[in-house]
Amino acid sequence: MIGIFDSGVGGLTVAKEILKNTNRQQIIYFGDTARLPYGTKTPAFIRKISRKITKWLIKKGAEIIVIACNTSSALAGDTIKREFKVPVFDVINPSIKDVLQSTKNKKVGVIGTPATIKSLQWQKKIKRKDKSIKVYSVSCPLFVPLVEEGWVDKKITKAIAEDYLKPLKEKQIDVLVLACTHYPLLKDTIREVMGKKVKIIDPAKNLAKEINLFLNKNQKSNSSFSQKKNNYFFFSDAPYNFEKISKLCFGRKVKIIKKIEDPFSF
Amino acid sequence: MIGIFDSGVGGLTVAKEILKNTNRQQIIYFGDTARLPYGTKTPAFIRKISRKITKWLIKKGAEIIVIACNTSSALAGDTIKREFKVPVFDVINPSIKDVLQSTKNKKVGVIGTPATIKSLQWQKKIKRKDKSIKVYSVSCPLFVPLVEEGWVDKKITKAIAEDYLKPLKEKQIDVLVLACTHYPLLKDTIREVMGKKVKIIDPAKNLAKEINLFLNKNQKSNSSFSQKKNNYFFFSDAPYNFEKISKLCFGRKVKIIKKIEDPFSF
Repeated sequence: MIGIFDSGVGGLTVAKEILKNTNRQQIIYFGDTARLPYGTKTPAFIRKISRKITKWLIKKGAEIIVIACNTSSALAGDTIKREFKVPVFDVINPSIKDVLQSTKNKKVGVIGTPATIKSLQWQKKIKRKDKSIKVYSVSCPLFVPLVEEGWVDKKITKAIAEDYLKPLKEKQIDVLVLACTHYPLLKDTIREVMGKKVKIIDPAKNLAKEINLFLNKNQKSNSSFSQKKNNYFFFSDAPYNFEKISKLCFGRKVKIIKKIEDPFSF
Repeated sequence: MIGIFDSGVGGLTVAKEILKNTNRQQIIYFGDTARLPYGTKTPAFIRKISRKITKWLIKKGAEIIVIACNTSSALAGDTIKREFKVPVFDVINPSIKDVLQSTKNKKVGVIGTPATIKSLQWQKKIKRKDKSIKVYSVSCPLFVPLVEEGWVDKKITKAIAEDYLKPLKEKQIDVLVLACTHYPLLKDTIREVMGKKVKIIDPAKNLAKEINLFLNKNQKSNSSFSQKKNNYFFFSDAPYNFEKISKLCFGRKVKIIKKIEDPFSF
């Protein structure tokens, strides 16, 4: 069973990619809707909460942990990998190779939440592999509430995107990383603003590919999980605007486990 | 000591009004920044958390509880009043009289978070006093993140305000209630969109007046609190963009108690 967590419903885009690539797997998803959004919280808070959720997922039977949230991956990814024995995948590492191979002019843009951008994790990981690459990053805090409102194709959304992306256009980046699970839902608007020549990387896709490779290598995909089982979706509070957003994220309606569990004792 | 709570820093606008009116009082403020925003959470969650915070404030010495958050006031106000023995003030009741006296054409607009608007509390409380008043309400979920970004006077903010407020303009309301502590920070933009003829009510001001009346009546303002004491500001996580927003809300820099306490055992 694959345990996936995110601050809310955005990680369903990751769950979708994983199920598409490894459709014999069973997933348990936890969305921390009671504490959402993570992007404006502190590193200490994000580490504490990510640790708690990981423990809870393992207790529920997860054998692999996927940190679908960029903010958690950036701030708590290394901590979780160090502290837990199960395989842990974050949403940053599987895309570094793609970034290196995709950029021609060595100018890369990264957009994410304030906490992700402030952590400099994307910069550090890209530059560790190729020092000559210039990484320009911008936080776009209004993108998450815009997606949650379902305002994915409004004029106002384009105006906000133009405002945020202006410095990246000026730097003439040729690769743009969507370092937040909500942002792929704004991909059309972002592409319109950035132009067709800029390659847009959605880290969820690379993450799902890497998990698939791992499962094939460990021969887990057809043996121990041969029977199709139910997937579980847990949220710490009922998600806002859920039907609209889960369809946007997941492509179809998600059946929530009725009992909304919160792994925290408050 | 007056205990004030809010989902984040927005309630500082209420704290400011209270201190202005009752400057001999000591306040203890709790901003639940770890779980912010409340406006998209469920009623059950908001009740649970409001109860926990009230208990915590009383334990810290609060003798009066002020629910500065509109969402908590709407969803948990009656519960808190019923369950606790100390005087409890919410941010809705003190403004009902103002609404009744201010409207000439009996068409009133209320804007707030999705949870506040969905609760219909403003409607119910206004209509209980005067059935003939028509109350039109609109939720404006992007206003909170816009304020937190400090985008209070941007063109984009005006465009979003025009979008949200259009139905209220069409109904020709003559009174508009800003039923969220963040919204007074967008007052100039809102006034520009609505026009000068619409009276804008900021419930924080009426709440502060009511508390002042209560304190004078109970002769507390000059006796037991005669010496000026420090005010305490607690947050469950370090507030995002704090310097900018606290200045907007409070008019001056707020000195946070260094230890960030979370009354919950997670």
